[in-house]
Amino acid sequence: MAEYKPPIRDITFTLRNIAGLGDLLEYPAFGHVDADTIDGILDEAGRFTAEVVAPTNRVGDTEGAVFADGAVTTPEAFHKAWRQFVEAGWNAVDGDPEYGGHGFPRVVGLAIKEMMVTSNMAFSLNPMLTGSAISLLEHHGSDDQKAQYLEKLITAQWTGTMVLTEPHAGSDLGTIRTRAERNLDGSYRISGTKIFITWGDHDLTENIIHLVLARTSNGPPGTRGLSLFIVPKYTLDENGEPADRNGVECVSIEHKLGIHGSPTCVLSFEDAAAYLVGDENQGMRLMFTMMNQARIEVGLEGLAISERAYQDAVAFAADRHQGRTIGDAAEGNAPIIDHPDVRRMLMIMKASTEAMRAMLYDTAAATDRAQHAPDEETRRIAADRQALLTPVVKAWCTDLGVELTSLALQVHGGAGYIEETGAAQHYRDARIAPIYEGTNGIQGVDLVTRKVPMDGGGVVRSYLAEIEALDEPLGEAGEQFHALRVNLRDGLAALSSATEWLLARDDPNDGLAAASPYLNLFGTVAGGFYLAREALHATDHSDANPWLSAKVETALFYGTRILPGAKGIVGAATSGHAGVFAVDADMLGGTG
Amino acid sequence: MAEYKPPIRDITFTLRNIAGLGDLLEYPAFGHVDADTIDGILDEAGRFTAEVVAPTNRVGDTEGAVFADGAVTTPEAFHKAWRQFVEAGWNAVDGDPEYGGHGFPRVVGLAIKEMMVTSNMAFSLNPMLTGSAISLLEHHGSDDQKAQYLEKLITAQWTGTMVLTEPHAGSDLGTIRTRAERNLDGSYRISGTKIFITWGDHDLTENIIHLVLARTSNGPPGTRGLSLFIVPKYTLDENGEPADRNGVECVSIEHKLGIHGSPTCVLSFEDAAAYLVGDENQGMRLMFTMMNQARIEVGLEGLAISERAYQDAVAFAADRHQGRTIGDAAEGNAPIIDHPDVRRMLMIMKASTEAMRAMLYDTAAATDRAQHAPDEETRRIAADRQALLTPVVKAWCTDLGVELTSLALQVHGGAGYIEETGAAQHYRDARIAPIYEGTNGIQGVDLVTRKVPMDGGGVVRSYLAEIEALDEPLGEAGEQFHALRVNLRDGLAALSSATEWLLARDDPNDGLAAASPYLNLFGTVAGGFYLAREALHATDHSDANPWLSAKVETALFYGTRILPGAKGIVGAATSGHAGVFAVDADMLGGTG
Repeated sequence: MAEYKPPIRDITFTLRNIAGLGDLLEYPAFGHVDADTIDGILDEAGRFTAEVVAPTNRVGDTEGAVFADGAVTTPEAFHKAWRQFVEAGWNAVDGDPEYGGHGFPRVVGLAIKEMMVTSNMAFSLNPMLTGSAISLLEHHGSDDQKAQYLEKLITAQWTGTMVLTEPHAGSDLGTIRTRAERNLDGSYRISGTKIFITWGDHDLTENIIHLVLARTSNGPPGTRGLSLFIVPKYTLDENGEPADRNGVECVSIEHKLGIHGSPTCVLSFEDAAAYLVGDENQGMRLMFTMMNQARIEVGLEGLAISERAYQDAVAFAADRHQGRTIGDAAEGNAPIIDHPDVRRMLMIMKASTEAMRAMLYDTAAATDRAQHAPDEETRRIAADRQALLTPVVKAWCTDLGVELTSLALQVHGGAGYIEETGAAQHYRDARIAPIYEGTNGIQGVDLVTRKVPMDGGGVVRSYLAEIEALDEPLGEAGEQFHALRVNLRDGLAALSSATEWLLARDDPNDGLAAASPYLNLFGTVAGGFYLAREALHATDHSDANPWLSAKVETALFYGTRILPGAKGIVGAATSGHAGVFAVDADMLGGTG
Repeated sequence: MAEYKPPIRDITFTLRNIAGLGDLLEYPAFGHVDADTIDGILDEAGRFTAEVVAPTNRVGDTEGAVFADGAVTTPEAFHKAWRQFVEAGWNAVDGDPEYGGHGFPRVVGLAIKEMMVTSNMAFSLNPMLTGSAISLLEHHGSDDQKAQYLEKLITAQWTGTMVLTEPHAGSDLGTIRTRAERNLDGSYRISGTKIFITWGDHDLTENIIHLVLARTSNGPPGTRGLSLFIVPKYTLDENGEPADRNGVECVSIEHKLGIHGSPTCVLSFEDAAAYLVGDENQGMRLMFTMMNQARIEVGLEGLAISERAYQDAVAFAADRHQGRTIGDAAEGNAPIIDHPDVRRMLMIMKASTEAMRAMLYDTAAATDRAQHAPDEETRRIAADRQALLTPVVKAWCTDLGVELTSLALQVHGGAGYIEETGAAQHYRDARIAPIYEGTNGIQGVDLVTRKVPMDGGGVVRSYLAEIEALDEPLGEAGEQFHALRVNLRDGLAALSSATEWLLARDDPNDGLAAASPYLNLFGTVAGGFYLAREALHATDHSDANPWLSAKVETALFYGTRILPGAKGIVGAATSGHAGVFAVDADMLGGTG
């Protein structure tokens, strides 16, 4: 695994030119923040993640989290990195200033998170889940609950978890059985078994705050009867310090394909002291608050793990010499980075990671605008935009994470299949992201059944109109942009026709059968849109600047090699459900 | 992992209707074989692989091959299965009758190998490599060498290996340094270090016959100076029995992403007794004899691992209940196999595996025709066809193996990421196949630089003409086939234009930059061609037969959902090399 080089320049470029950071900083809510401070913080975060966190990635995979005697221990390297993470206050950058946070825009927090995940995805999941717990308590906790938990979570002295899944209740939470009984003092006691709890137990902090979905005795069936509870690993004494061990225990951890440094726990609750968040039977509604943020951050994992795999592949390809290149007069073999097919793979990685970064940062900036823009109209539009793009960034970026880490492994040849190289770890780590936080299939369903129909299709059409509006500046930008312009136009036509096809469907199964290809089509075209915008920003100064010139060429590469893929997807995105069900279920799988 | 159900019916259907088994059996070389015998053998092989080999797959992964004290030990379960494999004579089905083989067509051998690989890919690599050694010795061994080694290898009493790679010499064998010194008696002694030797040491047989590429002292540099040697683990006594330990030692095995049951060895040779095969400096030429067969068999791994992953996914999806389907009046949750997006994934797997099977068997049957057809013209055409398709089946099927095992894992949701389920093992095992036996990038280079230009493009054009000739029968087959027909026509147009574009290139870098997308385009269109042929065979009787009806629907699914992908690839396959190199190497990878 090569040394991690934080891509600060592309991060900054994207924050300014895609996320509109300059505009965000004009908002009153960010009056205490300025661009120079952000630059300084990003530099410092780059140093921290590269020097402190990134070196823990391999050892986290090989040692892994270990379960013994009812407790999880994490690699020693994680302890040291965690202490420095807490001391430097990295978890607090975008937290609420009232509870120890620094109140920076979410999109700046996302940029720092990107570098954290790239450095060590397994490690980064702990602050990520903690962030979801913070988000829930900020929005729905009582003042007492905020006072008790928020500052400790924001400063990462404690961590938080999301406790939803049960063996029979994964994608469908309506069948959750964990029960909460109300005590006379208004608190509850919870009993049941939960699985797949990320960082559900560990030895990095003195307390862990579980946010648990459970069913009260008198609630309606299905998801409408779920309530949300705080269940601390240690209940608090009168000073708010951890005191007594609560009735929640880790009974095992999973043996997983990847993210070995991140313990995935089975948690057993037995009359655990629990504190209701919000009202009874509001659990699912409250969960949706953190779900958008969590889905954007899982999408971020697709970008981050691809970035690391890409950097490793470039380093390997520059170093490994095999064969001669055409017309090469030099002595000896060429570095494989000079072979066309290897360079092609690296360019796919470069173009796709930069497209993902732009899409993710744009979506996160919409979160900031939705929350903090001074005028309501801007807030409403931004909220719709974020809602539309969230399933796309979650699924498109995590599918790409799998594809690009696979390409990076391929660049390594035989060495890529050997664990010591580290390429295989990225490939294994990346594979979880299309699954958790709503499978990518569910993201597709969310996109076609909830997001595309928003405002009668108005939200998606307004996004497509922005893509269309790029046609004129691309035309004015000269001959160099011709192929990109034509292919973006064709891609948009494919996406528009699929969108109108979806909006015109009567049978919801048609949309469900089209969901995943439609989402892929959406992401592919949107990726071209973002890179084209970046290229237009870069082109003015690109002659004198090789970095900006590379930015333009990367967009043109995407435009001619990746964006045309849209034409290949539109068929599957507009074919209806009949063909999907034409073969009976009992004729599938080894028949005959 | 579900029980493996050998897909005998589809294997038989493909042998008859695509591979033309009936015609092959008319050849004098196969006068001793009849169709009923083959049916019986396939049934028996199905039983053997499902009952004896398949149950060893998980334990092979979890126990793995172990290296200690200079030797490799394999899981106990492998010993039992291996003894039964040898006793039943499964390795000998397509071997030379003069040396203990049964002289069946290669394509029948391939069908049995498919079931072996599907049952346990790691285990199957041992007979596969042995088969390559057999092929080399059959073609190039002296009579003495054949007498000494062939029967023991064909009956699998001993196994064989291919010993090519060195740390600095992977894709580029020209830099091999292992040296062979000639002894006075005409034998040689070999010294050097070789890596990535599949089943290079193990405890299943009493001897291992290494086929080693090494450099003699007076040869020319590069690949032209390589010679091929037999290096037995134990040299033979006058009775041909293993006697003295030779100077070849396993010094370590690799810690790999997958195929844990297959030891990947570092072999150290120190004055090892070695016997020249053929003449000095002919090593590479001789190697090409086995390379086509080996590449087809690695392509087979893509099919086989996909088949197993697909069967497991179907079993899981039929069993796992989550959520309701549209309009479902039944009580409780539906099996996820009834959800459109899950069914879509399963149909992609079904259609793609059947397309791979057809392409692979067609290519293997071409091997039989090339070797045994009574007339020279048929042999020549078949040899060209096999040469054209070999890189396509190797790369297209193994890329699909990665993609489809990933889909199968996705169908499992969170359970897919847990190793116990077995879905992750398929995903890990499948990932080696695009790398070894010539990376898929090298297959693309072989296709565009050697195969497409054969006979001035005549060989590829004649294949494309066969696809075109299907247009008329598809038209006559009725309205049901309309979309498949149109999309096959469009796909063929894309493939033809890319082919002519390639043939017209002056700059070889254009072909090299286009190689991988071109190969993918070729495979995608050819897959539609084979499934369309199968559908036409099936359609006559499909009304009364649900299995044949499913065959037709599977082709139509491919035609509307997968085949249109060709339109999305043709851009990348015809874009030239300039865009690939437009960004300087030093601007790649974490710059900034």
